[in-house]
Amino acid sequence: MKLFKKVGIVGVGLIGGSIALALKKHKLSRMIIGVSRSRKTLLLAKIRKAIDQGSQDINLIKGADLVVLATPVAVTLKLAPLISKIVKKDCIVIDVGSTKEQVVSRLNRIFANYLGTHPLAGSEKRGIAFASADIFKDSTCILTPAEDTNPQIIARVKKLWLKLGANIVILPAGIHDQVLSLLSHLPHAIAFSLMNCIPESYLRLVPPSLKDITRIAASDEELWEDIFLTNRSNIIRSIGLFQNKLESLKKTLQRGDRRSLDRILKEAKKKRETLG
Amino acid sequence: MKLFKKVGIVGVGLIGGSIALALKKHKLSRMIIGVSRSRKTLLLAKIRKAIDQGSQDINLIKGADLVVLATPVAVTLKLAPLISKIVKKDCIVIDVGSTKEQVVSRLNRIFANYLGTHPLAGSEKRGIAFASADIFKDSTCILTPAEDTNPQIIARVKKLWLKLGANIVILPAGIHDQVLSLLSHLPHAIAFSLMNCIPESYLRLVPPSLKDITRIAASDEELWEDIFLTNRSNIIRSIGLFQNKLESLKKTLQRGDRRSLDRILKEAKKKRETLG
Repeated sequence: MKLFKKVGIVGVGLIGGSIALALKKHKLSRMIIGVSRSRKTLLLAKIRKAIDQGSQDINLIKGADLVVLATPVAVTLKLAPLISKIVKKDCIVIDVGSTKEQVVSRLNRIFANYLGTHPLAGSEKRGIAFASADIFKDSTCILTPAEDTNPQIIARVKKLWLKLGANIVILPAGIHDQVLSLLSHLPHAIAFSLMNCIPESYLRLVPPSLKDITRIAASDEELWEDIFLTNRSNIIRSIGLFQNKLESLKKTLQRGDRRSLDRILKEAKKKRETLG
Repeated sequence: MKLFKKVGIVGVGLIGGSIALALKKHKLSRMIIGVSRSRKTLLLAKIRKAIDQGSQDINLIKGADLVVLATPVAVTLKLAPLISKIVKKDCIVIDVGSTKEQVVSRLNRIFANYLGTHPLAGSEKRGIAFASADIFKDSTCILTPAEDTNPQIIARVKKLWLKLGANIVILPAGIHDQVLSLLSHLPHAIAFSLMNCIPESYLRLVPPSLKDITRIAASDEELWEDIFLTNRSNIIRSIGLFQNKLESLKKTLQRGDRRSLDRILKEAKKKRETLG
């Protein structure tokens, strides 16, 4: 069943490209238009049959009944006013950015039918080359409606993400940004800082555990600078929480206190084991 | 080619069990004896054909020409004097613990032919059930000879680890402990602390990146308490180094300084990408 006649995807990278491939796989749109800064991306998206037409010109999305903004947060904020002049009044607009409060408050004013979404999927890889129709399967997608968001828009976007295989969680944008600052932005801050602690000369000795824990340190810097700067106060608070825990572990070691150490390690292990 | 006639493996867990399986696979010993506190472990090790005989009685290793101590560091330190009364004078003794300075200085006095080794392999899983003959393939094994270690012993142990598929790096025990405190012990301290920051109610929203970064938080607590407490001063110093890097990232965010943030993220990304 076609949910949409024409979908415009702005930013055909890992997430935008994966949405395009998933829309194709599940036959959810008659036509898919890709817009990108990069000709190479558009060519690859066509070769992979993710999009029907691609252009560097944003005007190609005219007439779309769904527009997906899948660019880094700052680019999304910059493009939104321009896009609002192109799309039909009843066009549904969603973004897929990792921070929501700033984006939702701006885009909700700009578009009549906007809903913020954040699929918890993807990896440190970037680009259409790594896109896959299946990355949303069994993932979680957070929807962040504003108080005045039309329930029918929420219902249609929810249906879209369910069709792509995601489980839906609805959170206010402010809560989303608090929760994600702990669950995603803090871990990235940690991975970047940890990687920068390791002297070059030690790199040939890196054990598998360090490779795992620093995998996300290879994340795209443009994407992550935008995330850090659009969720600053929450991330600063989350770093503070973590600093307290780490300092307390350090003090436990300074005291040589095996009993407290045992408590810390068992609490962590028990929590981690619930994640599978 | 048989390197040994009789190998005694004390502690038939993930690493001890994997060594036994690899010795069998490459036909490096005529006979393999397993010693464990747990009957269940010994039974499973026999079912998996990792060992020829198993016992809770350490005396079974009598007559071995290689003894592998694969217990947590504190257990190794406790068992060593007892084992020294059982083994032949020319028996080669190695341990596989993750901290080396304390163990090497003690065991080098206790045994005539001791060499410390640390295979950088394994995972947060524990037990013979997860053991595999192939976990050392393309891994790194660090040898930590003392100044007076017999070069012939180093040569034979090197040959053993090469046969098991590892690349060899030789480091003094003190340097090993400094390097590993950054590359392995600090990441574990971080993973435990990070896990303990996450409220229970957030666990259902955990994205793939947090799962990766906290995987090692499920590590065995006995093993890790021993590691932390036998490498305390290095780990405390490494935590301090990391704390400075994280604090500096936090200050960059407080200033909203995109240029410095860009420098931090690019440095981390570049380093991480060399790891593959």
